[in-house]
Amino acid sequence: MINEYYKGLTNKKSQIREMYMYGLKRKKEIGEENVFDYSLGNPSVDAPKEFNDSIKRLLDTTKSLELHGYSPNLGNDHMRECVAQSLKRRFNLPYTKDCIFPSSGAAGALAHAIRAVTTPGDEVITFAPYFPEYNHYVGGTGAILKVVPADTKTFQINFDEFEKLITEKTMAVLINTPNNPSGVVYNTECIKRLAQILLESEAKYSHPIYLISDEPYREIVFKGVDNPCVSSFYDNTLMCYSFSKSLSIPGERIGYVAVNPKCPDHKLLVEIMAQISRGIGHNCPTSLIQLATADCIDLTSDLAVYETNMNILYDKLVSLGFEVVRPGGTFYIFPKCLEEDSQHFCEVAKSLDLLLVPSDTFGVKGYFRIAYCVTTDFVKRSLPKFEELARLYNK
Amino acid sequence: MINEYYKGLTNKKSQIREMYMYGLKRKKEIGEENVFDYSLGNPSVDAPKEFNDSIKRLLDTTKSLELHGYSPNLGNDHMRECVAQSLKRRFNLPYTKDCIFPSSGAAGALAHAIRAVTTPGDEVITFAPYFPEYNHYVGGTGAILKVVPADTKTFQINFDEFEKLITEKTMAVLINTPNNPSGVVYNTECIKRLAQILLESEAKYSHPIYLISDEPYREIVFKGVDNPCVSSFYDNTLMCYSFSKSLSIPGERIGYVAVNPKCPDHKLLVEIMAQISRGIGHNCPTSLIQLATADCIDLTSDLAVYETNMNILYDKLVSLGFEVVRPGGTFYIFPKCLEEDSQHFCEVAKSLDLLLVPSDTFGVKGYFRIAYCVTTDFVKRSLPKFEELARLYNK
Repeated sequence: MINEYYKGLTNKKSQIREMYMYGLKRKKEIGEENVFDYSLGNPSVDAPKEFNDSIKRLLDTTKSLELHGYSPNLGNDHMRECVAQSLKRRFNLPYTKDCIFPSSGAAGALAHAIRAVTTPGDEVITFAPYFPEYNHYVGGTGAILKVVPADTKTFQINFDEFEKLITEKTMAVLINTPNNPSGVVYNTECIKRLAQILLESEAKYSHPIYLISDEPYREIVFKGVDNPCVSSFYDNTLMCYSFSKSLSIPGERIGYVAVNPKCPDHKLLVEIMAQISRGIGHNCPTSLIQLATADCIDLTSDLAVYETNMNILYDKLVSLGFEVVRPGGTFYIFPKCLEEDSQHFCEVAKSLDLLLVPSDTFGVKGYFRIAYCVTTDFVKRSLPKFEELARLYNK
Repeated sequence: MINEYYKGLTNKKSQIREMYMYGLKRKKEIGEENVFDYSLGNPSVDAPKEFNDSIKRLLDTTKSLELHGYSPNLGNDHMRECVAQSLKRRFNLPYTKDCIFPSSGAAGALAHAIRAVTTPGDEVITFAPYFPEYNHYVGGTGAILKVVPADTKTFQINFDEFEKLITEKTMAVLINTPNNPSGVVYNTECIKRLAQILLESEAKYSHPIYLISDEPYREIVFKGVDNPCVSSFYDNTLMCYSFSKSLSIPGERIGYVAVNPKCPDHKLLVEIMAQISRGIGHNCPTSLIQLATADCIDLTSDLAVYETNMNILYDKLVSLGFEVVRPGGTFYIFPKCLEEDSQHFCEVAKSLDLLLVPSDTFGVKGYFRIAYCVTTDFVKRSLPKFEELARLYNK
């Protein structure tokens, strides 16, 4: 019979996507320049020239059967080696290619990592605010997602609430730093304490608890921000990475899981992820894109615009009386609404052609997300809209 | 806990892959030209020049954010439209883009199609000989694969045995034509009878039974062979296609599911497949490859070598006394061994540096597969090895 679980999902549309679709329609009505669409987390800067050049060079210099042929189940060896060497240089951990599993972006990395370390019925803990697709990555495996309420003062981890949720069934903890939607980077103190609690819980329950660290915004961290490498603090860490944001290539579906080399089961976990890929028929990321990404392993797009935009928006929001935590990275900021109902607040903003995403979808009430992956000119032109919005609440 | 189902799979190595790995090792020992490796079904002709040219043109003429940006969940609209129009032209069925779901090759297409139309515990029927990865595509969904024994006289469908296996729990039937490993193309009479039985069974059990038709070898059909379009005969057909063989790009992971436009649920099934992709974090095939494939939608590599190779091998095998059904397509031939034990027979061949795959892995005993996706020179040079092998059994 038609699968009812997935049929049910077809009716649950993403709120982010719906706002974006509304924006496309509205732009046709009143002109592109008059709609301030801050809904979608799509990079706004070009891929580095070297990425396209590398693809062309591969096409010109590699034999067709080799270039376009099957990758091994575990991914292209050269790609895995390049990722391992890069991580080793940067984070001073002894990564080898046996730790690396190339994936379809961070999404594929997360879904594989979660499936590898859980059995249906197991519990996975994450922290609000969180990326709503986590519900699907966890739900698809049959594991249960439990959400720790947000510490809205800092958007660091709310440890008291976290400790209450850990049980014998907790097999994985899922964090996202730098964080979508808050823009906050978990600081060294936060990661240290998290690692300590996980170690104690592993001892208490006598089984591993894997830390799945979702890090697609790792290269977008602002000046002076404490940005610890999560894997350095906890051996059983599965780092999930994507080149979508760093190289501005989200459609090319490329990322990886890097299992901490100090995790006793790192090789087995990578082999298990290859079996998961085999079962869903995905097998591997595209050969051409694996090789081109390997060529650009330490490059990024010009990401400076995101910090510029953040500073302008943060200052303006503060001056208008918004409560807001200053982002340490990403291209998101997550202010408190000027009323309790974030859905209604975003409807009011929408009536001004300012498209924001209500926070409910991220597991927090009363906030909204601005995705400032746009041009700085766009940000500046949008400021009167924020003023207008604030005025409506400060009559 | 570490997922035991997938952990178990890491120990079940593919026999095809193991033979291939042995071949690589052996070539280093005695020289590449002295090992006759017929194990792997990898295309042996280059991708058409137009495919690489299209990628370069896309890189030169499309804006980075558009080219490398996210595809919609359902896949790139242009790609879907091109596939639909091509199928409409060729098979005279009213395909629209709503019928098309771009996938990671036929593997992704099959895994998604099976998951969309089954619930754990449902039964899926397939026919020996069959591609061993079907076990994983079905097993991963929680459905149960039931295998109809082969009709070894013709390698068409064994209908008497098929009818015995249909039950109330049968939700899908999975066929592969042209067939890997037999090389046989199911003829019009066979497809008509299959459709008739499925219609009667749908009526009897009052639920749809979907026909999942695995067709990656559709463009490799030899002169004069009856090659019916399966979808024309049965409305509830999900055609699973790959460009891996037709364009010689297996590593680029691109194919599609085309749900028959006459299937009442075609639009819903495509939307369900997008939700399945979302859950595993795969989302979509690579944007660049979707677009380049759309440009080459009606092209193929120069596939003539496969028929040339088939004719040489078939004639030689017959002259040596092998029982063998003449392939109608693909790049496989599936002769009967000269002893009952196909594992042992292939070990004997291996001792002559002739690498064949025993049939057990395909659900049939006593046969072997030759994958003749090699140069014609290679085939000719290998003939003395087949003579030597036959001599060992005809002393």
